[in-house]
Amino acid sequence: MRNIKLTISYLGTNYCGWQTQKPAEVRSKKHLPSIQETIEQALSNILQEEIRVTGSGRTDAGVHSLGQTANFQTKTRMKGNNIQKALNSILPRDIIITKVQETDESFHARYSAKSKLYSYTILNQQFPDIFLDNRVYHIPYKLSIQAMRKAGKYLRGRHDFSAFQGRGSKGKQAIRTVKSLKISKNSNSFTIDISADGFLHNMVRRIVGLLVEAGRGKIKPERVGEILESKDRALGGPTAPAKGLCLIHVDY
Amino acid sequence: MRNIKLTISYLGTNYCGWQTQKPAEVRSKKHLPSIQETIEQALSNILQEEIRVTGSGRTDAGVHSLGQTANFQTKTRMKGNNIQKALNSILPRDIIITKVQETDESFHARYSAKSKLYSYTILNQQFPDIFLDNRVYHIPYKLSIQAMRKAGKYLRGRHDFSAFQGRGSKGKQAIRTVKSLKISKNSNSFTIDISADGFLHNMVRRIVGLLVEAGRGKIKPERVGEILESKDRALGGPTAPAKGLCLIHVDY
Repeated sequence: MRNIKLTISYLGTNYCGWQTQKPAEVRSKKHLPSIQETIEQALSNILQEEIRVTGSGRTDAGVHSLGQTANFQTKTRMKGNNIQKALNSILPRDIIITKVQETDESFHARYSAKSKLYSYTILNQQFPDIFLDNRVYHIPYKLSIQAMRKAGKYLRGRHDFSAFQGRGSKGKQAIRTVKSLKISKNSNSFTIDISADGFLHNMVRRIVGLLVEAGRGKIKPERVGEILESKDRALGGPTAPAKGLCLIHVDY
Repeated sequence: MRNIKLTISYLGTNYCGWQTQKPAEVRSKKHLPSIQETIEQALSNILQEEIRVTGSGRTDAGVHSLGQTANFQTKTRMKGNNIQKALNSILPRDIIITKVQETDESFHARYSAKSKLYSYTILNQQFPDIFLDNRVYHIPYKLSIQAMRKAGKYLRGRHDFSAFQGRGSKGKQAIRTVKSLKISKNSNSFTIDISADGFLHNMVRRIVGLLVEAGRGKIKPERVGEILESKDRALGGPTAPAKGLCLIHVDY
């Protein structure tokens, strides 16, 4: 069996997220397809065998990707380059396979991952931008980058991030190492880049939610350190919207 | 009566174009709302009077705007600033009013317009870009900017642009002055900026279609001059897709 690695860009707007939903979830909501099942169906069609792909991790509904990674096993002899062309010709236009690579059999998109880089974009101006609406979090009030940077400092390094996990990761081990957290400003937009050895469910969006509270002066930057130490998710800030978030890169 | 000028940005993807369709057209297609009717309804709601807006001109289905201009008459005493806020709070997120200005009664968005600037964007790389898909024309094959620029030279100045009109403008006087036509390249994208005292239906998209033919070597640049002189629309190239086109500015 060959083990093939995919690098995938997608606009998450029209999907329920990376991961295929369980039948109960499908029944309970307005059902959108998952990125995973969309790629699996396309691959199964092209290769004429049942394909299951393993992603580096989930991304939520509405979250985007420039560097999601997945792998799958196949018996096909088709060249990687041709698999890529065939996939891109039948996938919907909001999913693109940017790379197809042969890997050794030990490669596992999730377990082999060493770190991930996420980027969150805030559009900080009076009115939203029609061209960016599904990709940024629009905030019309003033944000202080100094306060956000001060607040962000508390989160770098190895910590128990229990206070920053969503309901989805309840009870899981919550120690993660944030390798870098960089906040930059470029005319009307703020970008928050966070790289870590792993992320809890909603962790980036909850961090961003709290940094925004600090940026608009609702909490003092030091409060972020206290919340981290409390390990109490009830103390965290609001969860920033999914649409501003993008998975940039997975390191192996 | 007050005469109020609006400057409007929109993403044309989910609209049938600027202009409201006639009932026959509405019946004959999958009906999308027009930008015009969407703004009229919002204004009529806010001002509690029946409002008709006049645009600087039509934009087709799928064409975008950063600077469409329109005006309307009203008896309201509401300040322009408050009209803008109210409009932006009820309009869908793909339409934004970027400016509201009081004008004198002689101002007419269409007849007072002196020139317009349109910009067309081509994404020139192997695969489409998920984030830009509804805003650019994706071309995977190589384009020569030298050939495109050479071809573009024939179109500057005052000419009869009959060969570049769509079916919609049949029989109309077709002399227009192209004040500038600039082709620039920026990493993987080409931008074609065209300013003129007026545009025929589909004129920009037909110009771009032909410049692309020149850029990929299907025709010689000089052929563009011959086609212009022929005044024969049957000789023109393909019409470039609407989604790459954006109305940038209207000059008064």
